[in-house]
Amino acid sequence: MDERLEKQLSFALEIDKEKNVFRQTHLSGNGRNENDAEHAWHMAIMAYLLREYSNEEIDITRVMLMCLIHDIVEIDAGDTYAYDEESLKTQKEREDKAKERIFSILPEEQKRELIALFDEFEAYETPESRFAHTMDNLQPLLLNDSNNGGDWRAHNVSAKQVYSRQNKTRLGSEKLFEVVDGIIKENIRKKNLRE
Amino acid sequence: MDERLEKQLSFALEIDKEKNVFRQTHLSGNGRNENDAEHAWHMAIMAYLLREYSNEEIDITRVMLMCLIHDIVEIDAGDTYAYDEESLKTQKEREDKAKERIFSILPEEQKRELIALFDEFEAYETPESRFAHTMDNLQPLLLNDSNNGGDWRAHNVSAKQVYSRQNKTRLGSEKLFEVVDGIIKENIRKKNLRE
Repeated sequence: MDERLEKQLSFALEIDKEKNVFRQTHLSGNGRNENDAEHAWHMAIMAYLLREYSNEEIDITRVMLMCLIHDIVEIDAGDTYAYDEESLKTQKEREDKAKERIFSILPEEQKRELIALFDEFEAYETPESRFAHTMDNLQPLLLNDSNNGGDWRAHNVSAKQVYSRQNKTRLGSEKLFEVVDGIIKENIRKKNLRE
Repeated sequence: MDERLEKQLSFALEIDKEKNVFRQTHLSGNGRNENDAEHAWHMAIMAYLLREYSNEEIDITRVMLMCLIHDIVEIDAGDTYAYDEESLKTQKEREDKAKERIFSILPEEQKRELIALFDEFEAYETPESRFAHTMDNLQPLLLNDSNNGGDWRAHNVSAKQVYSRQNKTRLGSEKLFEVVDGIIKENIRKKNLRE
Protein backbone atom coordinates (compact mmCIF):
# COMPACT_ATOMS: atom_id res chain seq x y z
CA MET A 1 0.00 0.00 0.00
CA ASP A 2 1.40 3.45 -0.79
CA GLU A 3 2.29 5.82 2.02
CA ARG A 4 -0.47 8.32 1.31
CA LEU A 5 -3.27 5.76 1.48
CA GLU A 6 -1.70 4.17 4.55
CA LYS A 7 -1.80 7.52 6.35
CA GLN A 8 -5.41 8.10 5.36
CA LEU A 9 -6.48 4.69 6.65
CA SER A 10 -4.52 5.16 9.88
CA PHE A 11 -6.39 8.40 10.44
CA ALA A 12 -9.70 6.67 9.69
CA LEU A 13 -8.90 4.09 12.35
CA GLU A 14 -7.68 6.71 14.84
CA ILE A 15 -10.89 8.73 14.77
CA ASP A 16 -12.86 5.62 15.69
CA LYS A 17 -11.87 6.62 19.25
CA GLU A 18 -14.21 9.61 19.09
CA LYS A 19 -17.04 7.14 19.72
CA ASN A 20 -15.69 6.70 23.23
CA VAL A 21 -15.76 10.41 24.13
CA PHE A 22 -18.96 10.90 26.10
CA ARG A 23 -20.79 14.17 26.60
CA GLN A 24 -23.03 15.49 29.37
CA THR A 25 -26.04 15.37 27.05
CA HIS A 26 -28.33 12.34 27.26
CA LEU A 27 -30.10 10.71 24.32
CA SER A 28 -33.84 11.27 23.97
CA GLY A 29 -36.12 8.95 25.92
CA ASN A 30 -33.89 9.58 28.96
CA GLY A 31 -31.23 7.44 27.33
CA ARG A 32 -27.55 7.09 28.07
CA ASN A 33 -24.96 9.84 27.59
CA GLU A 34 -24.32 10.77 23.99
CA ASN A 35 -20.87 10.48 22.45
CA ASP A 36 -19.08 12.93 20.19
CA ALA A 37 -19.40 10.88 16.99
CA GLU A 38 -23.18 10.58 17.38
CA HIS A 39 -23.43 14.27 18.17
CA ALA A 40 -21.44 15.17 15.05
CA TRP A 41 -23.54 12.88 12.84
CA HIS A 42 -26.72 14.44 14.20
CA MET A 43 -25.44 17.98 13.66
CA ALA A 44 -24.42 17.29 10.07
CA ILE A 45 -27.86 15.99 9.09
CA MET A 46 -29.59 18.83 10.92
CA ALA A 47 -27.35 21.36 9.19
CA TYR A 48 -28.40 20.02 5.82
CA LEU A 49 -32.12 19.90 6.60
CA LEU A 50 -32.22 23.30 8.31
CA ARG A 51 -29.86 25.19 5.99
CA GLU A 52 -32.68 27.44 4.75
CA TYR A 53 -32.67 29.16 8.16
CA SER A 54 -29.07 30.33 7.99
CA ASN A 55 -28.84 34.13 8.29
CA GLU A 56 -26.26 34.19 5.53
CA GLU A 57 -25.61 32.19 2.41
CA ILE A 58 -23.52 29.13 3.22
CA ASP A 59 -21.58 26.40 1.49
CA ILE A 60 -23.42 23.48 3.05
CA THR A 61 -20.69 20.94 2.28
CA ARG A 62 -18.22 22.93 4.35
CA VAL A 63 -20.74 23.29 7.17
CA MET A 64 -21.35 19.54 7.21
CA LEU A 65 -17.63 18.82 7.21
CA MET A 66 -17.10 21.22 10.10
CA CYS A 67 -19.89 19.49 12.01
CA LEU A 68 -18.37 16.08 11.32
CA ILE A 69 -14.80 16.92 12.39
CA HIS A 70 -15.20 19.65 15.04
CA ASP A 71 -14.88 17.29 18.01
CA ILE A 72 -12.05 15.05 16.79
CA VAL A 73 -9.60 16.89 19.08
CA GLU A 74 -11.61 15.62 22.05
CA ILE A 75 -10.14 12.15 21.47
CA ASP A 76 -7.14 13.51 23.38
CA ALA A 77 -8.55 16.63 25.04
CA GLY A 78 -11.79 15.11 26.34
CA ASP A 79 -15.20 16.73 26.28
CA THR A 80 -15.42 20.11 27.97
CA TYR A 81 -18.88 20.71 29.38
CA ALA A 82 -20.26 24.07 28.26
CA TYR A 83 -20.95 25.11 31.86
CA ASP A 84 -17.77 23.85 33.50
CA GLU A 85 -15.81 27.07 34.15
CA GLU A 86 -12.61 25.37 35.32
CA SER A 87 -12.25 23.07 32.32
CA LEU A 88 -13.06 25.89 29.93
CA LYS A 89 -9.87 27.69 31.06
CA THR A 90 -7.56 24.93 29.82
CA GLN A 91 -9.68 23.86 26.84
CA LYS A 92 -7.77 25.73 24.13
CA GLU A 93 -4.35 24.47 25.21
CA ARG A 94 -5.54 20.86 25.44
CA GLU A 95 -7.27 21.03 22.07
CA ASP A 96 -4.34 22.66 20.26
CA LYS A 97 -2.05 19.86 21.32
CA ALA A 98 -4.62 17.25 20.29
CA LYS A 99 -5.19 18.94 16.95
CA GLU A 100 -1.51 18.76 16.09
CA ARG A 101 -1.12 15.11 17.06
CA ILE A 102 -4.26 13.72 15.48
CA PHE A 103 -4.40 15.60 12.19
CA SER A 104 -0.68 14.93 11.65
CA ILE A 105 -1.60 11.32 10.97
CA LEU A 106 -3.03 12.49 7.62
CA PRO A 107 -1.04 13.36 4.48
CA GLU A 108 0.28 16.91 4.82
CA GLU A 109 -2.28 18.74 2.65
CA GLN A 110 -5.24 16.94 4.22
CA LYS A 111 -3.82 17.74 7.64
CA ARG A 112 -3.66 21.41 6.68
CA GLU A 113 -7.19 21.32 5.27
CA LEU A 114 -8.79 19.76 8.34
CA ILE A 115 -6.87 22.00 10.75
CA ALA A 116 -8.00 25.03 8.74
CA LEU A 117 -11.61 23.83 8.94
CA PHE A 118 -11.32 23.22 12.67
CA ASP A 119 -9.73 26.63 13.24
CA GLU A 120 -12.42 28.27 11.13
CA PHE A 121 -15.09 26.60 13.25
CA GLU A 122 -13.44 27.77 16.45
CA ALA A 123 -12.94 31.34 15.21
CA TYR A 124 -16.67 31.87 14.61
CA GLU A 125 -15.99 34.40 11.87
CA THR A 126 -17.43 32.89 8.69
CA PRO A 127 -21.09 32.21 7.84
CA GLU A 128 -20.32 28.48 7.70
CA SER A 129 -18.78 28.40 11.16
CA ARG A 130 -21.64 30.42 12.61
CA PHE A 131 -24.23 28.02 11.23
CA ALA A 132 -22.21 24.99 12.37
CA HIS A 133 -22.15 26.50 15.87
CA THR A 134 -25.90 27.01 15.71
CA MET A 135 -26.19 23.25 15.17
CA ASP A 136 -23.68 22.57 17.94
CA ASN A 137 -25.94 24.51 20.32
CA LEU A 138 -29.35 23.48 19.00
CA GLN A 139 -28.75 19.73 18.83
CA PRO A 140 -28.10 19.11 22.57
CA LEU A 141 -30.82 21.62 23.49
CA LEU A 142 -33.39 19.59 21.56
CA LEU A 143 -32.32 16.37 23.28
CA ASN A 144 -32.23 17.96 26.70
CA ASP A 145 -35.63 19.58 26.21
CA SER A 146 -37.06 16.21 25.13
CA ASN A 147 -35.80 14.84 28.46
CA ASN A 148 -37.52 17.58 30.45
CA GLY A 149 -34.26 19.48 31.00
CA GLY A 150 -32.60 16.61 32.87
CA ASP A 151 -29.06 17.68 31.96
CA TRP A 152 -29.63 21.22 33.21
CA ARG A 153 -31.19 20.00 36.42
CA ALA A 154 -28.31 17.57 37.01
CA HIS A 155 -25.80 20.42 36.75
CA ASN A 156 -27.97 23.10 38.38
CA VAL A 157 -27.59 25.31 35.30
CA SER A 158 -29.11 28.81 35.25
CA ALA A 159 -31.09 30.42 32.45
CA LYS A 160 -28.41 33.10 32.31
CA GLN A 161 -25.74 30.49 31.55
CA VAL A 162 -27.84 28.98 28.79
CA TYR A 163 -28.59 32.35 27.26
CA SER A 164 -24.95 33.33 27.35
CA ARG A 165 -24.15 30.26 25.24
CA GLN A 166 -27.26 30.36 23.08
CA ASN A 167 -27.02 34.05 22.27
CA LYS A 168 -24.41 32.99 19.76
CA THR A 169 -26.97 30.67 18.17
CA ARG A 170 -28.64 33.73 16.70
CA LEU A 171 -25.44 34.71 14.89
CA GLY A 172 -26.02 31.66 12.69
CA SER A 173 -29.81 31.78 12.54
CA GLU A 174 -32.28 34.31 13.95
CA LYS A 175 -35.11 31.93 13.10
CA LEU A 176 -33.63 29.00 15.00
CA PHE A 177 -32.79 31.28 17.90
CA GLU A 178 -36.52 31.95 18.23
CA VAL A 179 -37.03 28.22 18.74
CA VAL A 180 -34.19 28.11 21.26
CA ASP A 181 -35.60 31.10 23.12
CA GLY A 182 -39.02 29.43 23.34
CA ILE A 183 -37.47 26.24 24.69
CA ILE A 184 -35.44 28.10 27.32
CA LYS A 185 -38.49 30.09 28.49
CA GLU A 186 -40.56 26.91 28.73
CA ASN A 187 -37.84 25.24 30.81
CA ILE A 188 -37.61 28.23 33.14
CA ARG A 189 -41.37 27.99 33.61
CA LYS A 190 -41.07 24.28 34.38
CA LYS A 191 -38.22 25.05 36.83
CA ASN A 192 -35.78 22.90 34.86
CA LEU A 193 -33.55 25.98 34.68
CA ARG A 194 -32.68 28.27 37.58
CA GLU A 195 -33.81 31.84 36.90
CA MET B 1 -43.46 27.85 15.39
CA ASP B 2 -44.53 27.30 11.79
CA GLU B 3 -45.53 23.83 10.62
CA ARG B 4 -42.57 23.34 8.32
CA LEU B 5 -39.97 24.01 11.00
CA GLU B 6 -41.93 21.93 13.48
CA LYS B 7 -41.79 18.94 11.12
CA GLN B 8 -38.07 19.40 10.56
CA LEU B 9 -37.36 19.49 14.28
CA SER B 10 -39.59 16.45 14.92
CA PHE B 11 -37.57 14.57 12.35
CA ALA B 12 -34.32 15.72 13.96
CA LEU B 13 -35.53 14.34 17.28
CA GLU B 14 -36.82 11.10 15.71
CA ILE B 15 -33.50 10.17 14.15
CA ASP B 16 -31.84 10.41 17.55
CA LYS B 17 -33.10 6.82 17.89
CA GLU B 18 -30.56 5.64 15.32
CA LYS B 19 -27.97 5.86 18.11
CA ASN B 20 -29.69 2.89 19.73
CA VAL B 21 -29.46 0.61 16.70
CA PHE B 22 -26.44 -1.59 17.31
CA ARG B 23 -24.47 -3.45 14.68
CA GLN B 24 -22.43 -6.66 14.76
CA THR B 25 -19.22 -4.68 14.27
CA HIS B 26 -17.15 -3.82 17.34
CA LEU B 27 -15.22 -0.62 17.86
CA SER B 28 -11.44 -0.73 17.57
CA GLY B 29 -9.52 -1.75 20.69
CA ASN B 30 -11.96 -4.65 21.07
CA GLY B 31 -14.60 -2.15 22.15
CA ARG B 32 -18.35 -2.45 22.40
CA ASN B 33 -20.70 -2.93 19.42
CA GLU B 34 -20.92 0.04 17.12
CA ASN B 35 -24.22 1.80 16.47
CA ASP B 36 -25.61 3.02 13.17
CA ALA B 37 -25.12 6.73 13.85
CA GLU B 38 -21.44 6.26 14.63
CA HIS B 39 -21.01 4.06 11.58
CA ALA B 40 -22.64 6.71 9.35
CA TRP B 41 -20.48 9.49 10.81
CA HIS B 42 -17.36 7.43 10.22
CA MET B 43 -18.35 6.61 6.63
CA ALA B 44 -19.05 10.24 5.77
CA ILE B 45 -15.63 11.44 6.93
CA MET B 46 -13.90 8.53 5.20
CA ALA B 47 -15.79 9.27 1.98
CA TYR B 48 -14.50 12.83 2.02
CA LEU B 49 -10.90 11.92 2.78
CA LEU B 50 -10.75 8.99 0.33
CA ARG B 51 -12.74 10.52 -2.52
CA GLU B 52 -9.68 10.62 -4.78
CA TYR B 53 -9.91 6.81 -5.05
CA SER B 54 -13.39 6.72 -6.54
CA ASN B 55 -13.41 4.98 -9.93
CA GLU B 56 -15.69 7.65 -11.31
CA GLU B 57 -16.16 11.34 -10.74
CA ILE B 58 -18.51 11.92 -7.81
CA ASP B 59 -20.45 14.72 -6.16
CA ILE B 60 -18.95 14.30 -2.70
CA THR B 61 -21.76 16.19 -0.95
CA ARG B 62 -24.30 13.67 -2.20
CA VAL B 63 -22.04 10.78 -1.19
CA MET B 64 -21.68 12.19 2.32
CA LEU B 65 -25.42 12.70 2.62
CA MET B 66 -26.07 9.14 1.50
CA CYS B 67 -23.60 7.89 4.08
CA LEU B 68 -25.27 9.96 6.79
CA ILE B 69 -28.85 8.87 6.08
CA HIS B 70 -28.52 5.35 4.64
CA ASP B 71 -29.31 3.57 7.92
CA ILE B 72 -32.14 5.76 9.24
CA VAL B 73 -34.67 3.09 8.20
CA GLU B 74 -33.05 0.74 10.70
CA ILE B 75 -34.68 2.72 13.52
CA ASP B 76 -37.76 0.62 12.74
CA ALA B 77 -36.31 -2.20 10.64
CA GLY B 78 -33.32 -3.02 12.86
CA ASP B 79 -29.83 -3.82 11.67
CA THR B 80 -29.56 -6.71 9.23
CA TYR B 81 -26.22 -8.46 9.56
CA ALA B 82 -24.53 -8.83 6.19
CA TYR B 83 -24.11 -12.58 6.68
CA ASP B 84 -27.53 -13.41 8.16
CA GLU B 85 -29.33 -15.13 5.26
CA GLU B 86 -32.73 -15.33 6.99
CA SER B 87 -32.94 -11.65 7.89
CA LEU B 88 -31.73 -10.64 4.44
CA LYS B 89 -34.89 -12.17 2.94
CA THR B 90 -37.24 -9.79 4.78
CA GLN B 91 -34.92 -6.79 4.81
CA LYS B 92 -36.43 -4.90 1.87
CA GLU B 93 -40.00 -5.17 3.12
CA ARG B 94 -39.07 -4.05 6.62
CA GLU B 95 -37.02 -1.15 5.33
CA ASP B 96 -39.65 0.06 2.86
CA LYS B 97 -42.21 0.35 5.63
CA ALA B 98 -39.73 2.15 7.87
CA LYS B 99 -38.72 4.52 5.08
CA GLU B 100 -42.29 5.62 4.56
CA ARG B 101 -43.01 6.20 8.23
CA ILE B 102 -39.82 7.97 9.21
CA PHE B 103 -39.24 10.25 6.21
CA SER B 104 -42.94 11.24 6.26
CA ILE B 105 -42.20 13.24 9.41
CA LEU B 106 -40.37 15.76 7.19
CA PRO B 107 -41.99 18.42 4.98
CA GLU B 108 -43.10 16.78 1.72
CA GLU B 109 -40.25 17.90 -0.54
CA GLN B 110 -37.57 16.98 1.99
CA LYS B 111 -39.25 13.61 2.44
CA ARG B 112 -39.07 13.06 -1.32
CA GLU B 113 -35.44 14.17 -1.44
CA LEU B 114 -34.26 11.86 1.33
CA ILE B 115 -36.24 8.89 0.02
CA ALA B 116 -34.73 9.47 -3.42
CA LEU B 117 -31.26 9.53 -1.89
CA PHE B 118 -31.94 6.36 0.09
CA ASP B 119 -33.35 4.60 -2.99
CA GLU B 120 -30.37 5.73 -5.04
CA PHE B 121 -28.03 4.27 -2.42
CA GLU B 122 -29.90 0.98 -2.42
CA ALA B 123 -30.05 0.75 -6.23
CA TYR B 124 -26.26 0.83 -6.60
CA GLU B 125 -26.49 2.40 -10.05
CA THR B 126 -24.85 5.82 -9.74
CA PRO B 127 -21.18 6.62 -9.09
CA GLU B 128 -22.18 8.27 -5.79
CA SER B 129 -24.06 5.23 -4.53
CA ARG B 130 -21.22 2.94 -5.55
CA PHE B 131 -18.66 4.96 -3.63
CA ALA B 132 -20.97 5.24 -0.60
CA HIS B 133 -21.27 1.44 -0.63
CA THR B 134 -17.50 1.16 -0.81
CA MET B 135 -17.40 3.11 2.46
CA ASP B 136 -20.21 1.00 3.92
CA ASN B 137 -18.08 -2.09 3.27
CA LEU B 138 -14.63 -0.70 4.03
CA GLN B 139 -15.44 0.95 7.36
CA PRO B 140 -16.50 -2.17 9.30
CA LEU B 141 -13.72 -4.18 7.61
CA LEU B 142 -11.11 -1.77 8.98
CA LEU B 143 -12.55 -2.01 12.48
CA ASN B 144 -12.86 -5.78 12.34
CA ASP B 145 -9.33 -6.17 11.00
CA SER B 146 -8.02 -3.95 13.81
CA ASN B 147 -9.68 -6.39 16.23
CA ASN B 148 -7.99 -9.40 14.65
CA GLY B 149 -11.17 -10.41 12.81
CA GLY B 150 -13.18 -10.91 16.00
CA ASP B 151 -16.54 -10.28 14.33
CA TRP B 152 -15.87 -12.84 11.63
CA ARG B 153 -14.70 -15.40 14.13
CA ALA B 154 -17.78 -14.82 16.31
CA HIS B 155 -20.07 -15.55 13.34
CA ASN B 156 -17.90 -18.23 11.73
CA VAL B 157 -17.84 -16.24 8.47
CA SER B 158 -16.12 -17.67 5.39
CA ALA B 159 -13.77 -15.88 3.03
CA LYS B 160 -16.24 -16.63 0.25
CA GLN B 161 -18.99 -14.73 2.09
CA VAL B 162 -16.73 -11.73 2.62
CA TYR B 163 -15.60 -11.71 -1.01
CA SER B 164 -19.16 -11.94 -2.21
CA ARG B 165 -19.95 -8.74 -0.31
CA GLN B 166 -16.65 -7.00 -0.91
CA ASN B 167 -16.57 -7.70 -4.65
CA LYS B 168 -18.98 -4.80 -4.89
CA THR B 169 -16.43 -2.60 -3.13
CA ARG B 170 -14.43 -2.57 -6.34
CA LEU B 171 -17.38 -1.09 -8.24
CA GLY B 172 -16.79 2.10 -6.24
CA SER B 173 -13.01 1.93 -6.03
CA GLU B 174 -10.54 -0.50 -7.56
CA LYS B 175 -7.79 1.03 -5.45
CA LEU B 176 -9.63 0.53 -2.16
CA PHE B 177 -10.61 -2.98 -3.19
CA GLU B 178 -6.87 -3.78 -3.35
CA VAL B 179 -6.67 -2.81 0.32
CA VAL B 180 -9.73 -4.91 1.12
CA ASP B 181 -8.32 -7.87 -0.76
CA GLY B 182 -5.07 -7.63 1.17
CA ILE B 183 -6.93 -7.51 4.48
CA ILE B 184 -9.08 -10.54 3.58
CA LYS B 185 -6.04 -12.59 2.52
CA GLU B 186 -4.22 -11.68 5.72
CA ASN B 187 -7.23 -12.76 7.80
CA ILE B 188 -7.49 -16.06 5.93
CA ARG B 189 -3.82 -16.62 6.68
CA LYS B 190 -4.43 -15.87 10.37
CA LYS B 191 -7.43 -18.23 10.33
CA ASN B 192 -9.82 -15.43 11.30
CA LEU B 193 -11.83 -16.32 8.20
CA ARG B 194 -12.81 -19.82 7.12
CA GLU B 195 -11.41 -20.68 3.70
